[in-house]
Amino acid sequence: MPTTKAIPEPPSATSACSRSLLTIASLGVDEVSAILHLATELEQEDAVARAQRLAHRRVALLFYEASTRTRTSFELAAKGLGADTALISSQSSSIEKGESLKDTGITLRALGAECIILRHLSSGAPYLLARVTGLPVLNAGDGMHEHPSQALLDARTMLRALRRSEEGPGETLLQGITVVITGDILHSRVARSNALLLPRLGARVILCGPPALLPEVALELGPGITIERDFDRALKQAQIVMMLRIQKERLTGVHIDLEEYTARYQLNAERLRARAPEAIVMHPGPMIRGLEISSEVADGPQSVIAEQVRNGVAIRMALIHRALVDRSGPAKQPGTKKRGRA
Amino acid sequence: MPTTKAIPEPPSATSACSRSLLTIASLGVDEVSAILHLATELEQEDAVARAQRLAHRRVALLFYEASTRTRTSFELAAKGLGADTALISSQSSSIEKGESLKDTGITLRALGAECIILRHLSSGAPYLLARVTGLPVLNAGDGMHEHPSQALLDARTMLRALRRSEEGPGETLLQGITVVITGDILHSRVARSNALLLPRLGARVILCGPPALLPEVALELGPGITIERDFDRALKQAQIVMMLRIQKERLTGVHIDLEEYTARYQLNAERLRARAPEAIVMHPGPMIRGLEISSEVADGPQSVIAEQVRNGVAIRMALIHRALVDRSGPAKQPGTKKRGRA
Amino acid sequence: MPTTKAIPEPPSATSACSRSLLTIASLGVDEVSAILHLATELEQEDAVARAQRLAHRRVALLFYEASTRTRTSFELAAKGLGADTALISSQSSSIEKGESLKDTGITLRALGAECIILRHLSSGAPYLLARVTGLPVLNAGDGMHEHPSQALLDARTMLRALRRSEEGPGETLLQGITVVITGDILHSRVARSNALLLPRLGARVILCGPPALLPEVALELGPGITIERDFDRALKQAQIVMMLRIQKERLTGVHIDLEEYTARYQLNAERLRARAPEAIVMHPGPMIRGLEISSEVADGPQSVIAEQVRNGVAIRMALIHRALVDRSGPAKQPGTKKRGRA
Repeated sequence: MPTTKAIPEPPSATSACSRSLLTIASLGVDEVSAILHLATELEQEDAVARAQRLAHRRVALLFYEASTRTRTSFELAAKGLGADTALISSQSSSIEKGESLKDTGITLRALGAECIILRHLSSGAPYLLARVTGLPVLNAGDGMHEHPSQALLDARTMLRALRRSEEGPGETLLQGITVVITGDILHSRVARSNALLLPRLGARVILCGPPALLPEVALELGPGITIERDFDRALKQAQIVMMLRIQKERLTGVHIDLEEYTARYQLNAERLRARAPEAIVMHPGPMIRGLEISSEVADGPQSVIAEQVRNGVAIRMALIHRALVDRSGPAKQPGTKKRGRA
Repeated sequence: MPTTKAIPEPPSATSACSRSLLTIASLGVDEVSAILHLATELEQEDAVARAQRLAHRRVALLFYEASTRTRTSFELAAKGLGADTALISSQSSSIEKGESLKDTGITLRALGAECIILRHLSSGAPYLLARVTGLPVLNAGDGMHEHPSQALLDARTMLRALRRSEEGPGETLLQGITVVITGDILHSRVARSNALLLPRLGARVILCGPPALLPEVALELGPGITIERDFDRALKQAQIVMMLRIQKERLTGVHIDLEEYTARYQLNAERLRARAPEAIVMHPGPMIRGLEISSEVADGPQSVIAEQVRNGVAIRMALIHRALVDRSGPAKQPGTKKRGRA
Repeated sequence: MPTTKAIPEPPSATSACSRSLLTIASLGVDEVSAILHLATELEQEDAVARAQRLAHRRVALLFYEASTRTRTSFELAAKGLGADTALISSQSSSIEKGESLKDTGITLRALGAECIILRHLSSGAPYLLARVTGLPVLNAGDGMHEHPSQALLDARTMLRALRRSEEGPGETLLQGITVVITGDILHSRVARSNALLLPRLGARVILCGPPALLPEVALELGPGITIERDFDRALKQAQIVMMLRIQKERLTGVHIDLEEYTARYQLNAERLRARAPEAIVMHPGPMIRGLEISSEVADGPQSVIAEQVRNGVAIRMALIHRALVDRSGPAKQPGTKKRGRA
């Protein structure tokens, strides 16, 4: 699966900061379990008590692409833990003066940020940022590469919708479950992160879509993944069906007849009733109602689309907490730490 | 009075959430009194104590139009009550990807927002948002339709400027007072909300302006409203004169000679001295000094324009508090409430 | 040194509010010392305790120009002291509707702002804002005029990098130190504020650059300033060398051959090693690596560029604290103060 404008991913970047989340592939299944547990612990906590957790620690949100749900989700997660946040978006910053990601990162660290949440157009940008800053970086979507917090919130949503326990070995959390991911796999960092995570939790993943949006090379994402071009045949095997947005802004040069696409791949009530009347329906949003999914399905009883958003806040609280708090010792107090000329 | 791009207003939307504020018409005069009292109570409270009121509850600000005073006023009101806020504006969000208001609303609710403050270009949009989310929605201006929090802050400003009590029956709060609203009534949601509220508080409302900006149909807004084309004649009856901004960006197709308009309808020192030397001068802002109002008047001793802004913060604290706190029982704790798959 | 689009600076504006920071020239050296001390006190304080300092006081950030480091620095400083912040930027506000700075300032005061941090394209704009609002205004950069908080953070950075004490008389803090400021002096508010401050702290300032970017009139900034066109000759005298960004967006009408400029004025490793192997290297950012400074130098052991950013947060905490707290008496409680019709 091609990624554009790629910044090389150094092999050591992942280890540079084990509290970053750059790619879902770097998380062991035990770590996935730990994050799921922490998300539940934080979600259930009283709001005022929770806000003592990271009181006035500093978290930077660096968004080079527009975003509502991911940005707001991370922002409310950080504020809910009591952190002070600073949002830097491409609309109102030195980014416009052409300052490099490297220098922006060094600046944010010097401003006291203890964690940077990054959305960037370029695949691999979070690796660069983690390497130059040495800070924990949470990848909030990098080009067509990855969106690892989305894969975690999707896993949480599946477990809850299927009424399965978060306890037990990570490898078996989704054992016996078939997840069908349908649509524009080629351009989707959500599909990529899910395809990398779900098989490791025991799920079988079926990717579905026309060759123009789903090249055979997608099989190389790893074991546990198959391709099925016929949506109806895929649906019949699904406990979970995840629909992806047709990203019109990324379809330049891709020949897709939207009418034909809709006929073959839209998840509508008739198709769902016929092929997967018990399946859970997911969509990372934003949806284009009437294109990849019908409104009746999006708002129907099988849909957990709003639950995905809700789980996103819990997962992101866990990720920010994990980034700032070394659970093997006491939390650092930013106000009292020594700052000399390094 | 026509409203553009109208989304139909369902009759049941108002009742859908009694803690919303979609239109000023839905508030009983007793509720108006209660909001005025709560505003004063919150304004007088110590800042630190006040911030315990809604500590770490979540309030979303969804602004599809640029705004300084209204957005900042709501934002500081929410923060002053201790809430965590998230601002979503059309400049930096999925709004740009064409996500519908419905899906944005569902997303914000799933993110944990307990109240949405909405400014939107389309009349009626807050109704739609309240209906699809089931959340309290505070209308911060919808197209040319309504701006109900402005009417409330204007009422508070009038009472204080006139040194009248907030106590007593709501119907008589402004009894015996004549309010002249002058200018571009046709395009003004401020005028509309005031015209709907003030007569119910006992005031007489005189609308003033040329036919192109003030069609006769404005009389249908309700009882207690008259039209007077001659500004000088109107002024002579005024205890309050409220000037409206000439919204040049909305004057397409309206034939107005600005020079003639200024001569006939500008509130300047000479006119004010001659016709209403005791009247209170108001303007919802932003002003165009030298067009509808002269600088001398705007900054003069009769002006309470800054007081309007100040009262806005108090009123909006009351509205947000009312939206989140059920005064018939204890406040809900968002961190401890159960969240299952609905 | 010319300043464009100048709003006249009234002689009385500075005295209008002694807790403003409009120009570095208005600060006595004792006040500079006091700010340096307060910065250290606040920086060393525990983060949670520090956030009680200005808990829920209101600070407005009014930015008419894009900014990352300065805006975020002031914002995190204010939040770190516990203040509620409101950011108004030219991208999302009534500024777009053409509201004047005067009316925006009056509005912010009425919204409860107790301090306004202003970045503006026009030299002198902070004076106007301080005069019309009567509030403490912190100049975060006004056109090509001044950037006084930058000069203070630069002074702090010099003292720390030189391991000199902040104690003792302000006049001698930098005694015996030579600071070379190189580059686009003409368009640099940073250079101007530093040139006004550093000689008063005892330093000698050498300005360096070609005549097109450094006219002879710069000598009129005050005593203690000399011009040296030869960068190598200047470097040999430097304990501190401060490089300035070539502001391509401001070079209209200035004839500069960038290749020749780089050859003569770039601070690179070879030049630094040969001429100033012990000097401290500074840059206010954003840098253009490869133009005025090489990456090797920017990231090298002599660079304190990140320290400048870090010191910015401490200095700005001190400035905001100074603006809101009258150290000759107890802090005002905004929630309890009386608000009548003034």
